Amino acid sequence: MSSTQVLIAEIDGLEHATDAATLRLKSRDFFWFSPLLKPQLDDCRAEISVRPHSVDEVMRLASAAARTRTPITVRGGGTGNYGQAVPLKGGIVLDMGALDQVIEVKPAVGTFAAGATMLEIDKALAPHGQELRFYPSTRKQATIGGFVAGGAAGAGSCTWGQLSDAGAVLAVEVVTVEEAPKLLKLEGPDVLKVLHAYGINGIIVSVTVPLAPAHPWAERMIAFDTLEAAARFGQAFTEADGIAKKLVSVFDPRIPPKLGRLGRKVPEGKAAAIIMVVEPQAAAMEDMARAHGGEIVFARDAEGAQMAAFEGKGEVGPLYEYTWNHTTLHALKRDPAITYLQLRFPPDSNLEVMGRLAEHFGDEMLMHLEFQRRFGRATFSALPLVQFTSEARLREIMAETEALGAQVSDPHTYVLNNAGWKRVDAPQPEFKRQADPYSLLNPGKLAE
Amino acid sequence: MSSTQVLIAEIDGLEHATDAATLRLKSRDFFWFSPLLKPQLDDCRAEISVRPHSVDEVMRLASAAARTRTPITVRGGGTGNYGQAVPLKGGIVLDMGALDQVIEVKPAVGTFAAGATMLEIDKALAPHGQELRFYPSTRKQATIGGFVAGGAAGAGSCTWGQLSDAGAVLAVEVVTVEEAPKLLKLEGPDVLKVLHAYGINGIIVSVTVPLAPAHPWAERMIAFDTLEAAARFGQAFTEADGIAKKLVSVFDPRIPPKLGRLGRKVPEGKAAAIIMVVEPQAAAMEDMARAHGGEIVFARDAEGAQMAAFEGKGEVGPLYEYTWNHTTLHALKRDPAITYLQLRFPPDSNLEVMGRLAEHFGDEMLMHLEFQRRFGRATFSALPLVQFTSEARLREIMAETEALGAQVSDPHTYVLNNAGWKRVDAPQPEFKRQADPYSLLNPGKLAE
Repeated sequence: MSSTQVLIAEIDGLEHATDAATLRLKSRDFFWFSPLLKPQLDDCRAEISVRPHSVDEVMRLASAAARTRTPITVRGGGTGNYGQAVPLKGGIVLDMGALDQVIEVKPAVGTFAAGATMLEIDKALAPHGQELRFYPSTRKQATIGGFVAGGAAGAGSCTWGQLSDAGAVLAVEVVTVEEAPKLLKLEGPDVLKVLHAYGINGIIVSVTVPLAPAHPWAERMIAFDTLEAAARFGQAFTEADGIAKKLVSVFDPRIPPKLGRLGRKVPEGKAAAIIMVVEPQAAAMEDMARAHGGEIVFARDAEGAQMAAFEGKGEVGPLYEYTWNHTTLHALKRDPAITYLQLRFPPDSNLEVMGRLAEHFGDEMLMHLEFQRRFGRATFSALPLVQFTSEARLREIMAETEALGAQVSDPHTYVLNNAGWKRVDAPQPEFKRQADPYSLLNPGKLAE
Repeated sequence: MSSTQVLIAEIDGLEHATDAATLRLKSRDFFWFSPLLKPQLDDCRAEISVRPHSVDEVMRLASAAARTRTPITVRGGGTGNYGQAVPLKGGIVLDMGALDQVIEVKPAVGTFAAGATMLEIDKALAPHGQELRFYPSTRKQATIGGFVAGGAAGAGSCTWGQLSDAGAVLAVEVVTVEEAPKLLKLEGPDVLKVLHAYGINGIIVSVTVPLAPAHPWAERMIAFDTLEAAARFGQAFTEADGIAKKLVSVFDPRIPPKLGRLGRKVPEGKAAAIIMVVEPQAAAMEDMARAHGGEIVFARDAEGAQMAAFEGKGEVGPLYEYTWNHTTLHALKRDPAITYLQLRFPPDSNLEVMGRLAEHFGDEMLMHLEFQRRFGRATFSALPLVQFTSEARLREIMAETEALGAQVSDPHTYVLNNAGWKRVDAPQPEFKRQADPYSLLNPGKLAE
């Protein structure tokens, strides 16, 4: 018997697949955003895809993998950009999508099975008058377990900060990979042991997060004469503590033409901002935008915005699907020679450094800013679109960017330790010995 | 007939009183916090107190006052500290307390009659899953119209900033004082015409504010070895974007003994913090407090905290009634020689400047910090308790405070123009000509 056949015998009764089409589908994520990762990861395949339907089934699978020493790569929606969900050493890809229950909802807190998508969670929360504090632009596909294991921020970060902030994830349950797997609950700071660890530290089966009471979020797209004007507005609006907001994204004038139907609403040559603001304060936001020279080019009320998100109805998709990594996705669909970077800026000189970069790189780097709260400050990070010519030039661009005063978090690596804001903190290596004694989880992602 | 008798004839049918006890009660606020204001305002009395029950009655009163050229001083709960509600030139004190309806509640926005108290509004909003974004420590007595006319910040400001921030008040309706009074609706930036104008620019009859969805707010009191440790915790916690919070107050070790039963929970010689935090994240806040050397000395869950606020039940009153101006009130009850100041600090050096003041003034100034968001930054203002010896020394203390790097907003004046953060902005004087052509509203508060 092949090792896969041995494993199949061991996991008798668990839903699984070994056909080439399924294995291709389940072995990929959005690593192809990176022209460097694409050739490295394109051919990586699991040997079997397993889809457990309960924590008990996860434990049976973990036990079988431990006994047969088979690698496991855990997968949520497969929306990561760094190959988080790509199995480097074959083995099992563990598709968590069937563990999608809302386990418990209480005021301001909810517990969800790891495979529940952010959108389905928000649909379930809506009747309770609550919502997730943040979600990635891939809200529809991304699972909450995947977001905790491989994400960082998203819509909502302009108010609530980052996923790694204190209290942003209250508890996580993980299954260990050993002959007799254990179900461990990590709470408080212990959550850091698995946060953004790409699933190398135990199989996340549930996540407990603080919830926000639900706001009616209206959408606006606003045109500005220049990137600088749009960025200054974005900064002022994010600093406006008294206006409740979910999303503040700003785009160089050359980006809207790459954003399809929505982008065509922006007059040629104009910069743009995408905003989600609490409906009764949309007028206050618009006053602020006009004071910065902005012109409202698209407006949709909260009911319409929710219909677009929840039911796919409306003239254009939900506006958050044009922001964060979706901006890159829209641009890549139209121009495969584009790639991207992830930049952070010193909060006291973010606009200056951004302006310096825009001027220095010209057509080689198109600025895309996402406003966030970081450690109590209102600022932005950038996911600029970058013209790709060669790896050598891309590395030069990163070095020049750092020299001009921004921090680069390299998105062109699948190695956990290499990426600037994906630190392996002190407790993680120790916890790995406990959660994964045979080093079977996502092997190859952690540099020795 | 005396002028009062003429007026009474004109307002036939409106509830009113002219007895000495009522006139004394309705002609006073908390100006006696200031040993300088006390002798100036102690004997000021209206000649008649009128209590309208509808906007129509307010308009009848305004017309009668215009025709008889009688001054009107509008009064909410009478919880101001600067004599906002004290009639300097006799005439009518207009008690708005009977206009207390919840006019309309929609998602994230509500309109309330000016005389509704903040506490009664929150009770009415609770079944809708909504709440006021902020309220003063006098939530129980203070009316929303009075808060807009004479307040600035309060519990909630650590998240939502100040009342003067863009979008914090969406609309206000005012009645003009003329023979044929008009009901004007001010929206957007026009609201600034009446904000913190002590009722000199029209009689506010309704207020529309954005609402927050209701959070379950738990209460904690935490002891720290030093003021500096408590302040550093307060700063770190206010900067923790990922933890939902309503109140962050910090007290010098010499203040808890002045706070009655609650204060006795703090070990002698220890500084303290009072916190309102969303219940599921209380543990995350406590981890942070312990990392700063804090010890939890009082804890009450959100249900208990709401019972204390809504029903007056519990071992101690709601903790916000020990913060903001209530701190001063508790201390004054025990030591009449105390007064207070209002200080702001440069956000980049707030802790340093605060430390400098504490060291310089020793027993003459006991620090009381209220953390707030100001223009997108997490920082604090201070309402220190000050040992009062003479006006000359108090003025010296203010000058020395400014020299050491803090900004003083003088709370010892009833003149609107004199107080640092109570500016009469450009549109206010013009609007006054329209809203109060005979200068009958709160005469004497605006310096010529």
